[in-house]
Amino acid sequence: MDKINGVMDKTSVEYKDFSKHVDEVVVLKGMIHRIREMTGFAFVIIRTARDVVQCVYSPEFSEYRMDEKVVEGCAVKATGKVVKDQTREDRYELQIHNIEILSTPAEMMPIVINKKQLDNIPLDLNLNFRPVTLRNPKERAVFKIQEGIARGFREFLLSQQFTEIRTPKINAQGAEGGANIFRLDYFGKQVFLAQSPQFYKQMLVPVYERVFEVGPVFRAEHHDTSRHLNEYISMDLEMGFIDSFHDIMNMETGALKYIMELLKSEYSEELALLNVNLPNIDEIPTIRFMDAKEIITKKFKKKITDYRDFEPEEEQLLGKWAKQEYNSDFLFVTHYPSEKRPFYAMDDPEDPEYTLSFDLLFRGIEITTGGQRIHDYNAQVAKMRARGMNPDDFESYLMAHKYGMPPHGGLGLGLERITMHLLGFKNVRYASLFPRDINRVTP
Amino acid sequence: MDKINGVMDKTSVEYKDFSKHVDEVVVLKGMIHRIREMTGFAFVIIRTARDVVQCVYSPEFSEYRMDEKVVEGCAVKATGKVVKDQTREDRYELQIHNIEILSTPAEMMPIVINKKQLDNIPLDLNLNFRPVTLRNPKERAVFKIQEGIARGFREFLLSQQFTEIRTPKINAQGAEGGANIFRLDYFGKQVFLAQSPQFYKQMLVPVYERVFEVGPVFRAEHHDTSRHLNEYISMDLEMGFIDSFHDIMNMETGALKYIMELLKSEYSEELALLNVNLPNIDEIPTIRFMDAKEIITKKFKKKITDYRDFEPEEEQLLGKWAKQEYNSDFLFVTHYPSEKRPFYAMDDPEDPEYTLSFDLLFRGIEITTGGQRIHDYNAQVAKMRARGMNPDDFESYLMAHKYGMPPHGGLGLGLERITMHLLGFKNVRYASLFPRDINRVTP
Repeated sequence: MDKINGVMDKTSVEYKDFSKHVDEVVVLKGMIHRIREMTGFAFVIIRTARDVVQCVYSPEFSEYRMDEKVVEGCAVKATGKVVKDQTREDRYELQIHNIEILSTPAEMMPIVINKKQLDNIPLDLNLNFRPVTLRNPKERAVFKIQEGIARGFREFLLSQQFTEIRTPKINAQGAEGGANIFRLDYFGKQVFLAQSPQFYKQMLVPVYERVFEVGPVFRAEHHDTSRHLNEYISMDLEMGFIDSFHDIMNMETGALKYIMELLKSEYSEELALLNVNLPNIDEIPTIRFMDAKEIITKKFKKKITDYRDFEPEEEQLLGKWAKQEYNSDFLFVTHYPSEKRPFYAMDDPEDPEYTLSFDLLFRGIEITTGGQRIHDYNAQVAKMRARGMNPDDFESYLMAHKYGMPPHGGLGLGLERITMHLLGFKNVRYASLFPRDINRVTP
Repeated sequence: MDKINGVMDKTSVEYKDFSKHVDEVVVLKGMIHRIREMTGFAFVIIRTARDVVQCVYSPEFSEYRMDEKVVEGCAVKATGKVVKDQTREDRYELQIHNIEILSTPAEMMPIVINKKQLDNIPLDLNLNFRPVTLRNPKERAVFKIQEGIARGFREFLLSQQFTEIRTPKINAQGAEGGANIFRLDYFGKQVFLAQSPQFYKQMLVPVYERVFEVGPVFRAEHHDTSRHLNEYISMDLEMGFIDSFHDIMNMETGALKYIMELLKSEYSEELALLNVNLPNIDEIPTIRFMDAKEIITKKFKKKITDYRDFEPEEEQLLGKWAKQEYNSDFLFVTHYPSEKRPFYAMDDPEDPEYTLSFDLLFRGIEITTGGQRIHDYNAQVAKMRARGMNPDDFESYLMAHKYGMPPHGGLGLGLERITMHLLGFKNVRYASLFPRDINRVTP
C-alpha cells in the first residue's frame, strides 16, 4: 500500500536559482530548444517553463556523445555543473555532464521557433500551428503576461471584499440583445450562449454586495475585424452601495494600478522580452461625452456625423488629446447618450438623455464599458417598456429588483483587448491562445 | 475636470471590525434582513456582504421613526453607536441613531429568507427563486466556500510554478467522445461545446510545462440525476516531466491540503454556519483497481458483475473501507482497465490491460479522474487506430506529440461535486449558483 502525502521533491533546478549553485552539479529538465554546433563543442539550449538556458556540450566534461539522438524537440534531463557565462555578464550556463532523453519528437519542427522571435510568418500560419508556435519564448510570454493581468484583477478585487462568482454560459436569453448571439439546441429547446454575465452579476449584488467573474463570453460577430473575437474572456465586476458611478471608476483605477505593479514585480522577464512600456497610472482624467465631441470638432477640426457614439477615429483623437493634455494613457469618457446604452443603464436624473455611464479608453481604444444600473423595479420595468421590451421575458432577472437591491453598478473589461493594447499588437488574435473568429475554430 | 485616482474611502464599517469601535458612532450599509418588533423597541437585522448584524431601534436613542417605509428588503445606510451585546458574549450590536433608505423593494419577499436557513422548501422552488433564496445566509455561504475551494486550487498551483491558461469553449471536436456533447451552428458549420480542456492543456505542456484552468465545461447528459449537471466548473491541471503518475497524485494531495487550510483560515464563519467538518488530510492511501475489486468481494461479500469499472455502490464500500482501515476520507484507486479509459491514457507497460491512471474517491464518491498520458506520437497514433479512430481528425492535437512533448499527466476535479460532498448535500444542484440540467436553463 503506497500512501500519498503531497510532499514533492524538487528534482530540477530553475534557472533563476543558478546563481546559488555555481560550481555545483544540478539537474535541469526541459525541451531541447536549439543546438548550435561549434568547433569542438556545442551549445545545447534547453527551454524550461519560463527560461531558455544555455548549456554547453564539450568532450572535455561531457560523458555522453552528441549523436543523432540528441535533437531539437527532445524532452531531456540534463545533469551538469553551473558556471558563470564568460561572455555575458550576470548570466550562467550549464556544463553538461550527461543527458537523459525522456522523449523524442517524431518529426522536426515545421516552423522555426527557436529564434528570438518567430520569423515574419503570416498570422494564419502562426495560428494553424499554435501548439508549435506557442513554444517560441516571445509568443508564450504574451500569455504569461495575460495570466498576470487577470491575476491582478482578481487579487485586487479579493482584497476589496469582492466575491468571485461563476455564472452559467448556457442562458435562456441574451443580456445584450441584438443579433450577435449564438443559439444552440438544448434537449429540444433553443437556448443561447452568454454574451456577458450582466444579469447574473446584478442578481448577486443583493447577495454578496460586491462580485466579480473572469470567464468566457460569446459573440456571434459576423464581421472579420482585427479587434473582434467570437469568444473572449470578460473580466466583470459589479458592486453595490455606490454613492455614484465614480465609485466604479475608482475601483477600476485601483485595479489597473495593482495590475501594473504586479506585472512589474512578477512578470519583469516577459515584459523585457516583449519590450513592453507599462503605462504609468497616477490619476485618470475624465471628460463628458458631449465635451469630448466638442474637443474633436474644435481642436481636431473633425466634423461630427454621429452624436450618439464615437467612431474609432474619434477615440484615437481623444487618446491623443489625453496624452498631450494630461500625459495620461487612459481617459474616462462619461455620460454617454441613453439611446446607445443598454436598457439597464441608469439615466442621469439631471439630464435623462444621457446616462451615468463611462467608457475607459486606453491609448485611444475602448477597453471598458461600465456604469450605474437601474436598481428600482418600477424604473427598470418602465425603461424596458419604453424600449418595446416585455418585462415578462425577464422575470427572474427582475426578481432582484422586485425584492430589493441597493444602488449599484459595474463594468466589463476584455482580457484579450487589454493584452493586445498593452503589448502593442495590431490584431487581437495575437492576444488569444487559441482564437475563435468567423473562419476559425481550430486548433 | 474630475480626476480618478483609485483612492476609495471606506465609508461603511464591517461587523468584524465592530470590536475596535465600541462606543463610537459608525456607518453600516446593508439590506434590511429582518425586523423584529418588541415592546417599546425593535431589532433591525441588517445583512451585509458577509454578516447579519443586529441593530436596535429604540425611541431612547433613535432619531427616526420606525414607520412603514422601513421594511425588509430595503437597502439602507444606518448610523449608530457600536455597543456590546448584553445577551450574547463576544457579539456586538448597533444602536441605530438614524437610517437613510437607499432603495425600497416593490414587493415583499415571496419566500422566507431571513431565518437561519430556508424552510424546507422543494429544490425546484429554491432554484426558481434563486435571486431571492441566495440571500439566505446559509445559501450564500455555500458559494463563499466554493470560492475558497477554487481559490485554494489556484493559489497552490501558482505557488508550484503552474501557468493559468484559458482555452476555448467552442471546439471543432470533442475531447471525450461519446454522445454527451452539445452541438451548435457556427456560421454554417457544426461545432461543439467543450466537454473538457483536455486537448488544450496537453498542447500547452511543451509550452509552459505546468498549466491549469478553472472554467466551465458542458456535458449533454440526457439523464436527470442528483449528481450530474449539464454545465459545471472543471478544475484542470496538466504537468510535464513527471517521473510517474504518482507525481500527479502528490500534486493533488498538496492542493487539497492547501485548500482545507485556506478554508479554515479565511472561511471559518461560513464553515461554522454550515456545520462543516473539514476532512483531515495527512496522507491518502492508494489501492489498485483489481485489489479494490477483491476487497469488495472478500470483505463486503458483494458479487462483482463488471470488472471494467465501479458501480456507485462499490465506490461507497471502498470509501467505508478507507475510513475503517486508514481513517481517511480520501482514497486513490489506481490502474483502471484500459478499455474504460480514454484514448490518451497511458497503458501500464508492465500490464497493458491496465492504465497508469487513478480516480480519487472522497467519502466514497469519485471527485477526480487523472493519470499519465501518452506523449509519444507513434504510440498515440497506434492507440487511436486500435480504437477505430482516425488520427487525421486530430491533426492539431497531435502536433503536440509529433514535434515533441515530455512525459506528462494531469487531472480534472469537478468544483460543484467537491463542494457538494464537502458540505454533505444529497443533490449537486445545491452546489451550483444557477444550475443547468435537462429541464432547467433559468434563472
